[in-house]
Amino acid sequence: MKVDGKPWRTIWLEPDGWSVGVIDQTQLPHRFVSTRLTTLDEAAWAIKSMVVRGAPLIGAAAAYGVCLALHADASDESLDRACAALAATRPTAINLRWALDQMARAVRNRPRGERVAAAYARAQEIADEDVAINAAIGRVGVELIEAAAARKNGARVNVLTHCNAGWLATVDIGTATASIYTAHDRGIPVHVYVDETRPRNQGAALTAWELQQHGVPCTVIADNAGGHLMQHGQVDLVIVGVDRATSQGDVCNKIGTYLKALAAHDTGVPFYVALPSPTIDFSTRDGVAEIPIEERGPEEVTHLTGMTADGRIETVRIVPEGAVAANYAFDVTPARLITGLLTERGLIAARADALAAAFPERIAKG
Amino acid sequence: MKVDGKPWRTIWLEPDGWSVGVIDQTQLPHRFVSTRLTTLDEAAWAIKSMVVRGAPLIGAAAAYGVCLALHADASDESLDRACAALAATRPTAINLRWALDQMARAVRNRPRGERVAAAYARAQEIADEDVAINAAIGRVGVELIEAAAARKNGARVNVLTHCNAGWLATVDIGTATASIYTAHDRGIPVHVYVDETRPRNQGAALTAWELQQHGVPCTVIADNAGGHLMQHGQVDLVIVGVDRATSQGDVCNKIGTYLKALAAHDTGVPFYVALPSPTIDFSTRDGVAEIPIEERGPEEVTHLTGMTADGRIETVRIVPEGAVAANYAFDVTPARLITGLLTERGLIAARADALAAAFPERIAKG
Repeated sequence: MKVDGKPWRTIWLEPDGWSVGVIDQTQLPHRFVSTRLTTLDEAAWAIKSMVVRGAPLIGAAAAYGVCLALHADASDESLDRACAALAATRPTAINLRWALDQMARAVRNRPRGERVAAAYARAQEIADEDVAINAAIGRVGVELIEAAAARKNGARVNVLTHCNAGWLATVDIGTATASIYTAHDRGIPVHVYVDETRPRNQGAALTAWELQQHGVPCTVIADNAGGHLMQHGQVDLVIVGVDRATSQGDVCNKIGTYLKALAAHDTGVPFYVALPSPTIDFSTRDGVAEIPIEERGPEEVTHLTGMTADGRIETVRIVPEGAVAANYAFDVTPARLITGLLTERGLIAARADALAAAFPERIAKG
Repeated sequence: MKVDGKPWRTIWLEPDGWSVGVIDQTQLPHRFVSTRLTTLDEAAWAIKSMVVRGAPLIGAAAAYGVCLALHADASDESLDRACAALAATRPTAINLRWALDQMARAVRNRPRGERVAAAYARAQEIADEDVAINAAIGRVGVELIEAAAARKNGARVNVLTHCNAGWLATVDIGTATASIYTAHDRGIPVHVYVDETRPRNQGAALTAWELQQHGVPCTVIADNAGGHLMQHGQVDLVIVGVDRATSQGDVCNKIGTYLKALAAHDTGVPFYVALPSPTIDFSTRDGVAEIPIEERGPEEVTHLTGMTADGRIETVRIVPEGAVAANYAFDVTPARLITGLLTERGLIAARADALAAAFPERIAKG
């Protein structure tokens, strides 16, 4: 999507043909800077420190991380070490595991001399596939926004979203935002309520920034506000992303998604999940019981970074000195609260049978 | 309650016998400072700017605001002007209106020469009544915590709370915290999950601070985290405060309370509201439809103030430049989601008949 009018992806091969460029998302919304990754360690650090984040982008970044490892050393040991190091960066993300599996399949049985080229080719494919999947999701979801606009006689459709499932969370276009960008580009009047998404504020920092850059009207709200807006008819539909979905359609996404799903259910607002199929983990069924929830450092809750009026970046403590904090990164929204899943193969029900019917080849692979 | 081991109230008459001292809550948790109010305008400013906040404390501060107005000018016009100015400071708070009504009744029919003394006497009574009510609420709620501890064979009871319904929100003791302090002081092991409560962070800044000062173990969490904790059995009961309750037991409280009530209902966690009777508005019935929700400035969402590592207080912007934000201060939790109301007259159901039976004299006054 566009930044200052110029098209960008979140990850790309640098002109040298082997190192990898990424947008440093920890600097947004205050500074738009990119950084160059040259080693496995740098790629792992970029994922762990959330320089790159978002399930699909983590997958693509992990794929390129394997490329960087093989570029330095194309041995089996190097491949194994890369997969292990990258898999350990974020425990909840399933695209990460999916991408590492894809990369290992692409290179493992090849002669060492062919591995590097094969790895870069597969990483490029994974990135391009993500863009194609998101475009397809956008074509599915835009129909819902178009229908809402028709019901409202062309009045502005209000979409609420949580966290950043925008183009910054993917290689391009985004998952939850795909429908929004598609609607906006088709001239359907759409406005987005952006949950700020504490503690890391990906909504306020990233979603608001990318919507603003693309010209989509949006309003940042505290995570607490969505229920009130839904009670008062100010939200037409909710669209969120997902970090891992189970075979029965439970959805693990950024902490707080479950609360919004409950409010949508209680107020009759449709609640959709934009779900690229690499994010489905067919090996899990009950999301609450089975998905490990990443706990991150308490300083993400106790401290906050922003820009002062005179342009300095400052980190401030917002709790009493010595306060204890807990920081759960995700929660699970049970399938029963989900109106539908927006996938690259259409709008499908959050049910085991519907998911299995839509992605039979994934079931076979177990 | 205690600050650095010394007992404090949130509002008091200064030694000069007429001016009013308050803790400046906008400075917490970083600085503990008090400020002296000497005029109606200063009292109105203190309420509007949230130097004092919390439904019961707003009531007491408004009562003293009337005293300050009459101290300067004991005329009918002065009384009317004071009531109008103070009523306009916070649109949702009902204690404010209740306290102003009490003050007008106490002074209106007296000769001008008696009005000032009568006003200060009634304001003192309102403050003392608040403390007595909260102590009574604590004796009701502690039984729930004690019962939970017994069910857990003496293991730590985890209470989740939202915003600050602590002693800082009242004259002393607090409403939601009354049961917690009473339990702690009786040696019942209790731990509190403190919602940070964006956008003003009253949980992280005030509740965590006052619990810490009193020695109650607590953990600050993002507002998004409560649902996850409840899904995983980590919350035994929720206790929140209230800014205005209706005759049928709908509860208007800090924005986000509704989301926690939904999660408690969905996961079977008991959800209690600590409700001093002056906070009941028997003239309203349907909270979602009837209670006006205060909208505050967007800068509370877009900016945040805290302390840097080297001890400076800084305000930082956490959204992209030019981002639009909305800031709804309260939401309404329907009575159907509430397990029970902790009042100074016992634990009662969130139902019109139960509220009417418990407070018949308020119905008569209608």
